[in-house]
Amino acid sequence: MKKIRAAIVGYGNIGKYALEALQESDDFEIAGIVRRKGAEDKPAELADYDVVKSIKELKDVDVAILATPTRSVEKYAKEILALGINTVDSFDIHTQIVDLRRSLDKAAKEGNAVSIISAGWDPGSDSIVRTLMQSLAPKGISYTNFGPGRSMGHSVAVRAIDGVKDALSVTIPLGTGIHRRMVYVELEEGADFKTVEAAIKADPYFVNDETHVSQVKSVKDVNDVGHGVNLVRKGVSGKTHNQQFEFNMKINNPALTAQVLVNVARASMKQQPGCYTMIEIPVIDFLPGDREELIGHLV
Amino acid sequence: MKKIRAAIVGYGNIGKYALEALQESDDFEIAGIVRRKGAEDKPAELADYDVVKSIKELKDVDVAILATPTRSVEKYAKEILALGINTVDSFDIHTQIVDLRRSLDKAAKEGNAVSIISAGWDPGSDSIVRTLMQSLAPKGISYTNFGPGRSMGHSVAVRAIDGVKDALSVTIPLGTGIHRRMVYVELEEGADFKTVEAAIKADPYFVNDETHVSQVKSVKDVNDVGHGVNLVRKGVSGKTHNQQFEFNMKINNPALTAQVLVNVARASMKQQPGCYTMIEIPVIDFLPGDREELIGHLV
Repeated sequence: MKKIRAAIVGYGNIGKYALEALQESDDFEIAGIVRRKGAEDKPAELADYDVVKSIKELKDVDVAILATPTRSVEKYAKEILALGINTVDSFDIHTQIVDLRRSLDKAAKEGNAVSIISAGWDPGSDSIVRTLMQSLAPKGISYTNFGPGRSMGHSVAVRAIDGVKDALSVTIPLGTGIHRRMVYVELEEGADFKTVEAAIKADPYFVNDETHVSQVKSVKDVNDVGHGVNLVRKGVSGKTHNQQFEFNMKINNPALTAQVLVNVARASMKQQPGCYTMIEIPVIDFLPGDREELIGHLV
Repeated sequence: MKKIRAAIVGYGNIGKYALEALQESDDFEIAGIVRRKGAEDKPAELADYDVVKSIKELKDVDVAILATPTRSVEKYAKEILALGINTVDSFDIHTQIVDLRRSLDKAAKEGNAVSIISAGWDPGSDSIVRTLMQSLAPKGISYTNFGPGRSMGHSVAVRAIDGVKDALSVTIPLGTGIHRRMVYVELEEGADFKTVEAAIKADPYFVNDETHVSQVKSVKDVNDVGHGVNLVRKGVSGKTHNQQFEFNMKINNPALTAQVLVNVARASMKQQPGCYTMIEIPVIDFLPGDREELIGHLV
């Protein structure tokens, strides 16, 4: 059987885990890694791979795994879809997903390619569970409770505050979609902790949440990529109330995101040209293997 | 917007709940109810509906919800698909799903119609969660823990034993896919409890499980349609171990099954001719409403 040739675009944290996930997936072949500095200072684990500055330098790429910052996803995806290569990404700005889908749907159809967007765990696999739960009890309330785990957006917001050298904001789930923020800051020399603490608590990212700020010597020493989620829904199936559903996970965040990206890269090979979110893809397409065997085993 | 015209075929427990689920779904119109005795002894809640002996007596049916016993699903589905009408069912014999799918795929394509099979909660919505979990950690072990709730198959097996007038077998989850069986029996006059108890414990349905048998005056008085499931998977994403996933629900069993049947009836209108299990259908198709609005709200 012909293997799927995947390129990894961007070689930061997610790119490294995507490489591992591809190495563990027998139905894939690694076409190469695209990064700004190309083959310069090539890390040891990339010794066996083509590492280039542009995806055009790689041969016969079926799908590009975009492991770039969220804000550059659209630009890279458009360029790559125009080459007739599928793209997958984990774009995570929830409020801009519909717009990105419209824009990449056009680009994908023009390039006769497939794009699957916002494919991580939230948005991503959680979105599938939320959609399924809503269908099982169409009337009712769902809550997504995140953590304990690092929030990138909140950590970045703290780093932007005067006197902060490095920062980590950990999200603690309190239930019903309410979260506590545990903030760990490493200060610039001469900065005043009380002033920084007050600025953090007044920041729009934190002002509405219970927020605790602690000073640490080194943020690197308290960092941990573990994360979790608790999705709950209580609602009505037909006319029957009090139907209760819950999904929990405790995971290494970048490892799961990378696994999802590989799953949707596989699924992209089975869709018609266009752009899709994960809730628009049959879950069986995320898995390798014979369709009837999967059905016999999993249904 | 044109409503989907659905017929309910079979008016037992699931059929009654399917009627309620359809009544709560604004995108559906009830074409009628098909049952053996037709309009004879029509129950009050069916006063406003056509109740007939054959689906051919109903007008413009888009989809038939088969609320018949599992063993007659194939026969009814073939007849109805030949009329160009979609079918959905909750066929629940796990080992025969692949065969049924093959047989109905042929019938559906010949009738230019869609069939979605094994659409309840297990097989059904649980199958989607199992498939998703497997994709998130491709190496690892999943367990499906059922209950507490009634097992129809086990209850029927007890009722077949000499001296048993009525019986209820409740499944208790002990974790890692191991279950305890709590059996409640109502005896025929003159039957010996100890003999019946021994026969149950020796039955193939029970011989491998921890089984406790109690005598009750009336099985009807201890019956309850509540059920539950706990699906767990621990495994490896890429090369990262100890990724943990869990899905729990506590539900009214027939109400959830009926809601799923209505969801797949809706989804059947969006598929190409052929036969599908739920893991082959995008979850967004289970919901009514505008696609972009759903994506904006759920992804």
